[in-house]
Amino acid sequence: MPAISLKGQTMPESPIRKLAPFAEAAKFQGKEVYHLNIGQPDIQTPAQAIQAVRDADLSILEYSPSEGFASYRKALAAYYAKNEIHITSEDLIVTSGGSEAILFAMGAICDPGDEVIIPEPFYANYNGFSINAGVNVVPVTAQIEEGFALPPIEDFEALITPNTRAIMICNPGNPTGYLYTLEELNALKELVLKHDLYLIADEVYREFAYDEHFHTSILNLEGLEDHAIVIDSVSKRYSMCGARIGCVISRNSALNASMLKFAQARLSPPTMAQIAAEAALDVEESYYQEVKEEYTHRRNVLVDGLNSIEGVFCPKPAGAFYVIAQLPVDNAERFAQWLLSAFSHENKTLMVAPAEGFYATPGMGQNQVRLAYVLEADKLAQAVELMRLALQQYPGTLY
Amino acid sequence: MPAISLKGQTMPESPIRKLAPFAEAAKFQGKEVYHLNIGQPDIQTPAQAIQAVRDADLSILEYSPSEGFASYRKALAAYYAKNEIHITSEDLIVTSGGSEAILFAMGAICDPGDEVIIPEPFYANYNGFSINAGVNVVPVTAQIEEGFALPPIEDFEALITPNTRAIMICNPGNPTGYLYTLEELNALKELVLKHDLYLIADEVYREFAYDEHFHTSILNLEGLEDHAIVIDSVSKRYSMCGARIGCVISRNSALNASMLKFAQARLSPPTMAQIAAEAALDVEESYYQEVKEEYTHRRNVLVDGLNSIEGVFCPKPAGAFYVIAQLPVDNAERFAQWLLSAFSHENKTLMVAPAEGFYATPGMGQNQVRLAYVLEADKLAQAVELMRLALQQYPGTLY
Repeated sequence: MPAISLKGQTMPESPIRKLAPFAEAAKFQGKEVYHLNIGQPDIQTPAQAIQAVRDADLSILEYSPSEGFASYRKALAAYYAKNEIHITSEDLIVTSGGSEAILFAMGAICDPGDEVIIPEPFYANYNGFSINAGVNVVPVTAQIEEGFALPPIEDFEALITPNTRAIMICNPGNPTGYLYTLEELNALKELVLKHDLYLIADEVYREFAYDEHFHTSILNLEGLEDHAIVIDSVSKRYSMCGARIGCVISRNSALNASMLKFAQARLSPPTMAQIAAEAALDVEESYYQEVKEEYTHRRNVLVDGLNSIEGVFCPKPAGAFYVIAQLPVDNAERFAQWLLSAFSHENKTLMVAPAEGFYATPGMGQNQVRLAYVLEADKLAQAVELMRLALQQYPGTLY
Repeated sequence: MPAISLKGQTMPESPIRKLAPFAEAAKFQGKEVYHLNIGQPDIQTPAQAIQAVRDADLSILEYSPSEGFASYRKALAAYYAKNEIHITSEDLIVTSGGSEAILFAMGAICDPGDEVIIPEPFYANYNGFSINAGVNVVPVTAQIEEGFALPPIEDFEALITPNTRAIMICNPGNPTGYLYTLEELNALKELVLKHDLYLIADEVYREFAYDEHFHTSILNLEGLEDHAIVIDSVSKRYSMCGARIGCVISRNSALNASMLKFAQARLSPPTMAQIAAEAALDVEESYYQEVKEEYTHRRNVLVDGLNSIEGVFCPKPAGAFYVIAQLPVDNAERFAQWLLSAFSHENKTLMVAPAEGFYATPGMGQNQVRLAYVLEADKLAQAVELMRLALQQYPGTLY
């Protein structure tokens, strides 16, 4: 039998996937499972997005341009302008989800053996995209005690080698929810300028900034024009993960020309989903506001609830819809399996994502889990109570 | 300014793209342009495909499973069974177009520096996917005089090195239209078994087999179970290029497990388009028959017409909807530009794809063009007459 590539062997399995058989078994036993494990929002997709597809004349479902429909790109530029990000439609390429945006960016800036420095814990799939591109992820550890703030800039600088091509952040962060401050972003700017690197920011959770906090795009950092690459997606913003529409943005025209060739090789992003995404841009400002208020409430219910449990520590982040919580358990993966296979209360249990898979440094995050607050607040409150009970019953709880 | 990667620099520009500005200019001048340059079929998408999306309950446009919706995968397995290809739904992963299927296959079997042997001329984007994966394409030249039949198997064997991972074919072929015979496929089978390689077949034009010819899938070659990888797509079959739905098929479970990890890293294929693609599978058998008859007629009009022009040689292939024609010109790319910029008859001209971009060997195909017969027969007949006139007027015609 011919061999699997080294790349194919080392592609990580999703940290959530490993639990899937346990979740299936729990459901088969008739348990109700609260899914705090994945970032699939329960918020309704704006109705006009779906309606636009229903109304479209699609007698021939044709390719779109490789860079995306001109009308959608213009509408996107207007959306960014409303968010005080001033780019032209020429600065962006429409992609099949944020995933493909990362693929194009990595492809255009990295050759096999190159390195990208990423604060950990990070979105597990960054590893997958890197391996696919032959790129080495170099982690710099953010501390739960600091609420996952940006690690000291010296920690980044110490890791820079001749092979380093970029620093990559997710802001606000999946899986931490951490929203970087302007000072942190400026520190990163100085560093990438000093070493002539790219700064890649995954800003798909831009609107999800809570309390008195505001999101700053790296596209608004002066002097970073040729270095800033933004990854974006409609998945979370409009609760349309299944559309698979994202974009990659840069003001570096040489970079854009290269990324466009990657885009041309795969022909085009999906046509119907672009129609939906363009229509979604017309949502009222109140949509974002309502979503934000809903998530703020949920976050408070979840984080305050978790912190009321003995031995649990959960920073309260200002963005996205994830938190990382430290649990008083021997091993979070074992605990997550146990929740599905051995625990239930009133025939209910919960599913969480072990955080270890979000770290690149072996052994990190073994007592942490990522929780997505994509359930209604009353269900989250129940999930917190289930967590409290579970920690009382779990044989590996360390009190 | 930070550098573009070597990979990003060497990604080829699409051979068609280079002509795009000339086509824009021609249209700006008010010329009608017959597009024989791209494989965007003009056949209507089955109405039930679009209707299924209109009818779907999509209040939240959610992720699908990474491997595709279970219902669609089962329906696909049934489609293959109707085509005498007996696989289970576990043997296939739904992808964002055939493009992503190639990406997953390449990723799972090739590391940077590995080699894939491909008969040239080949689909230009294979080069792009290879560069993206750090893989070297090793071409073996098929001859226009032989109608682009499979090159002698010794030519393949001579190119095999310790780095060779696979042989890749497109059957029926884009850009040649050539339909491989069972003997040719069996010869490839013996070779890949002897050297323990994979055989990748892009079979997206399966139904487009004309005259008395039938398509043989490499999935039906006995003994090749662990070696055969099929790339498929709904784009051409149902005239839904904009859906971006394909799949990758293999009976090698280790390979499938690896490809699934690549699929998981990009989360999921598009949801709405999968709904459309599943509904498209319900078309009557008569749909395929009518499409086939239409394309057979078009091919005859185009090829017989071209061969009636002095100095033009065009094999009549048995599949897909492309032909490669050899023209009596100094340089086909220059001629293609001239057609758009300097030629017109009754304010009409035609756009063709220079074939050079479909060859990996420098200098090959310089007097060849690829023509897609995705226009109605009467327009194709007019296009042939335009070609006849153009060759009489073009300053670089070699008679």
